[in-house]
Amino acid sequence: MVRGSMDAARRSRRGRPGHDRADVIRAGVQLFNEQGYDATSVSDLTARLGVTKSALYHHVDSKEQILAVALDDALGALEDALATALAHPTAQARLSAIIDGAVRVLAERQPEVTLLLRLRGNSALELAALERRRRFDHAVTELVRAAQEQKLVRTDLDAGVATRLIFGMINSVVEWYRPEGPVDPRSLAVSINAVALEGLRPR
Amino acid sequence: MVRGSMDAARRSRRGRPGHDRADVIRAGVQLFNEQGYDATSVSDLTARLGVTKSALYHHVDSKEQILAVALDDALGALEDALATALAHPTAQARLSAIIDGAVRVLAERQPEVTLLLRLRGNSALELAALERRRRFDHAVTELVRAAQEQKLVRTDLDAGVATRLIFGMINSVVEWYRPEGPVDPRSLAVSINAVALEGLRPR
Repeated sequence: MVRGSMDAARRSRRGRPGHDRADVIRAGVQLFNEQGYDATSVSDLTARLGVTKSALYHHVDSKEQILAVALDDALGALEDALATALAHPTAQARLSAIIDGAVRVLAERQPEVTLLLRLRGNSALELAALERRRRFDHAVTELVRAAQEQKLVRTDLDAGVATRLIFGMINSVVEWYRPEGPVDPRSLAVSINAVALEGLRPR
Repeated sequence: MVRGSMDAARRSRRGRPGHDRADVIRAGVQLFNEQGYDATSVSDLTARLGVTKSALYHHVDSKEQILAVALDDALGALEDALATALAHPTAQARLSAIIDGAVRVLAERQPEVTLLLRLRGNSALELAALERRRRFDHAVTELVRAAQEQKLVRTDLDAGVATRLIFGMINSVVEWYRPEGPVDPRSLAVSINAVALEGLRPR
């Protein structure tokens, strides 16, 4: 059902020319981040957008579909960054590339990733998204473990703990990064890469 | 008003022998973390505790008072850790001590700090807590800046960005740390200290 609803979301994103639907999704994600998904009603959404319920339902099937589309967007972008990282030939380059890619995804998709990071698993859809995030986390932990085996990363830390510390830095980006501020995503990615890889280098 | 409600929370914590009230606070914090403060009703609280409303109101004045007590607990512990850090004589020791202290506060007060980190500022109470958190963040940023002036921390990063990356690692602890797991707070603090200070050391 959840998987079906994500597929439906993807199909209808293709099926209908974007702009108005993108506005509905964007406003929904913003409201969910402001007041919480569970606390947001369809009436809140129509009030924010200044449209009728029937206009809203022209673009999306439900409040849950907005959540599904946003989570799929965030997770899809992270999975793409992982695939790009895995295409690199060395453990060092793969680890560096996933840090780089994840920072950029977070800087560029702040609202959607914020929603993902705050999920509590209160529905089948949320649980499926959390499971997809866990698969991503496990794949990154494997990259860290491979870097440890090659003595690129200190081995006195568990690979899982090291991964969580790196992603602690990366995930904090959604809380404080301002796209209009002085730091661009590229140099932010360079900084986090440097701090993480220097910090984790064996002594 | 908000300050008054925190003071009232503190007074009544002193005035009434603890156990039952502590249970009410603990259950409230747990529910707020599970389903969001705004989405939690007083009925949800009484259902979770298996008590009547009048029994609940024997211990706390309101749902908001539970939030006030929990936030004051988290913020007070962080402010105490800061005061302890500031008592150290050198910039290096201060920075190291605040990382250490903050990790322990987060590991020991996970539910309360989780609530603090998820605040959206939807009420005067939440805004006051966010302001108190901002003052703490600014004080830590000053510690990082002092360490930069003494060339203990790389200066190609803005002190604010460096602080946010360090606290990204520290704050992630509330998301993944399990007190019953293999890592104790003390060695977690040592690891985060090492990764942060090595990662930020000038090259």
